[in-house]
Amino acid sequence: MAQIAIVYHSGFGHTKVMAERVKAGAESIPGTQASLFPVEEIDAHWADLEAADGIVFGSPTYMGNVSAPFKAFMDASSKPWYERKWQDKLATGFTISGSPSGDKLNTLQSLMIFAMQHGMVWVGLTDLPQNEEGTNRLGSFTGVMAQAGQVAPDVEPSAADRKGAERLGQRIATATGRWGQVS
Amino acid sequence: MAQIAIVYHSGFGHTKVMAERVKAGAESIPGTQASLFPVEEIDAHWADLEAADGIVFGSPTYMGNVSAPFKAFMDASSKPWYERKWQDKLATGFTISGSPSGDKLNTLQSLMIFAMQHGMVWVGLTDLPQNEEGTNRLGSFTGVMAQAGQVAPDVEPSAADRKGAERLGQRIATATGRWGQVS
Amino acid sequence: MAQIAIVYHSGFGHTKVMAERVKAGAESIPGTQASLFPVEEIDAHWADLEAADGIVFGSPTYMGNVSAPFKAFMDASSKPWYERKWQDKLATGFTISGSPSGDKLNTLQSLMIFAMQHGMVWVGLTDLPQNEEGTNRLGSFTGVMAQAGQVAPDVEPSAADRKGAERLGQRIATATGRWGQVS
Amino acid sequence: MAQIAIVYHSGFGHTKVMAERVKAGAESIPGTQASLFPVEEIDAHWADLEAADGIVFGSPTYMGNVSAPFKAFMDASSKPWYERKWQDKLATGFTISGSPSGDKLNTLQSLMIFAMQHGMVWVGLTDLPQNEEGTNRLGSFTGVMAQAGQVAPDVEPSAADRKGAERLGQRIATATGRWGQVS
Repeated sequence: MAQIAIVYHSGFGHTKVMAERVKAGAESIPGTQASLFPVEEIDAHWADLEAADGIVFGSPTYMGNVSAPFKAFMDASSKPWYERKWQDKLATGFTISGSPSGDKLNTLQSLMIFAMQHGMVWVGLTDLPQNEEGTNRLGSFTGVMAQAGQVAPDVEPSAADRKGAERLGQRIATATGRWGQVS
Repeated sequence: MAQIAIVYHSGFGHTKVMAERVKAGAESIPGTQASLFPVEEIDAHWADLEAADGIVFGSPTYMGNVSAPFKAFMDASSKPWYERKWQDKLATGFTISGSPSGDKLNTLQSLMIFAMQHGMVWVGLTDLPQNEEGTNRLGSFTGVMAQAGQVAPDVEPSAADRKGAERLGQRIATATGRWGQVS
Repeated sequence: MAQIAIVYHSGFGHTKVMAERVKAGAESIPGTQASLFPVEEIDAHWADLEAADGIVFGSPTYMGNVSAPFKAFMDASSKPWYERKWQDKLATGFTISGSPSGDKLNTLQSLMIFAMQHGMVWVGLTDLPQNEEGTNRLGSFTGVMAQAGQVAPDVEPSAADRKGAERLGQRIATATGRWGQVS
Repeated sequence: MAQIAIVYHSGFGHTKVMAERVKAGAESIPGTQASLFPVEEIDAHWADLEAADGIVFGSPTYMGNVSAPFKAFMDASSKPWYERKWQDKLATGFTISGSPSGDKLNTLQSLMIFAMQHGMVWVGLTDLPQNEEGTNRLGSFTGVMAQAGQVAPDVEPSAADRKGAERLGQRIATATGRWGQVS
């Protein structure tokens, strides 16, 4: 059973919706179990992250970067970093903000750099931008970008963006299964 | 008279349209003269760049970065770099690609890093994303992002994106004028 | 009198040493007054930031990015961001971590993106890497990079790195003076 | 037999030395065959890249980014990109320049973004910076950074940097072997 941990911070509920779709997508792949860990509760779950085969990082983009609460989680991971506890785990990430670009790439790059510091293996979204279901309508590859304005989380992110999150969950679940065969 | 040089590479004409709008925007500011320099002809214009008060860098985003012809111009600038010929000039940049994000931020960051290596002073687009004219509809600040699919350059970039290019031209012209008062 | 505000977070005192050298460098330029604002006390100083002509951002690099306390300051700036209170102010940044690279460029890029979102004007370090005093020994241009291991802040950052911080202070002070002549 | 392709551009021979050490490192892992492809000859080797299980990208850092000849290779890969020919292949990268940082991270990030656009799976260097052999003395994780001044390629990159390149070769070879078990 491949274990996928999804660590996220959601200020107003929009990132949480994305995290839930990543979970649903991951669990649509046979042999995968996925768990949601909000950063506010991470102190109770460091062992769960250590036990996971893959970790998905999700943060809103605030001022062109991960949110401060998500960064606090990143900083707190220096202990497992030093002990190489996450080495060779699969990793990916997603982010959401109000505008189409909104410097979200800087958030994804920061998540990727973070995963590389931990010695992880990074997978992204493989869909071409012009695909039929619009799962990569914004043109993002390092991870998933989504959009939400000042509306309720059941209005935005859109159906296409939610589907993108599901696709990312499928991607890391499939990759984790393949990677784990010989472990 | 503030001199603004616009160095650009245009593979299919879309970036050229943006460059022309940057020029128009810059020249709408009294006391500003702007010139277009395609990278293919740059060898005849190194002295023009040296004489400019501000330089605007424009490249399509190909595979998540500046185009190879534009990079060839960047590499060829190592001589003025070493001699600090562009130090204290104003700089900004713009890019265009098919999808809303398309990793265009990496292109703008690469242009900014390039300008910093030259000791230049960087200005971006100051419009908030949700402004009335849509001049920053994609949510980009480091420079201007625009979008064009596989259509003719008179169809895309859109009117809003062209207006964004004009705004960037106004921004660097105004800043160059202010910066140059005491020079 | 040009006012330079230096906003910084220092976990163990090394970033504070750098901030102090930036201040000293800035004040070595006639007509400049510089002030240090640790992010822990920022709530008392938003008006000081609004009154400043230039702002220097300083953060250690933790896990390849600004520290969480510094990010909390960035997130809290969304109010002056929305009101464009910092637009047209000069900006630069510095960072410090244990190894020569240590992904410090991602921190500087994140600071620059942040300043661009605020509509600021960015200046970097103009020294060539191979200069005599070693003020840019690491080869950084977007801002200053320094190095400190697990030693006391009076041991590291090194004299060369401290000198680099002074040079950055001089740079933003000189630029702010020039920029402000017509304001 | 896992096939590793190493695509590189070397202006003065220093990057070639690194490429050769990556090859040696990869081939030190049983069941791995590695091949060197200079970008000047890439037109004869697109099928080799398509047949590879993992691809290593190597470029000097010129003006804070991949070199123009390497970028020409990247741009030329739009055909296999569109056809998803490289999807699910392993990828990593390395770069070299004169100073310790020298904005080399921007080159590695650009290579990673490029690989993500191709739907590849990215591995980095997992060594902690303070390890005994100095294989990660500069503190780089996304890929390997090395240093060479204006000296002959047999003088620099240093023994530590060459060892770092070998470690990167071992990393991608091991990862490719593990990833390929079920393919």
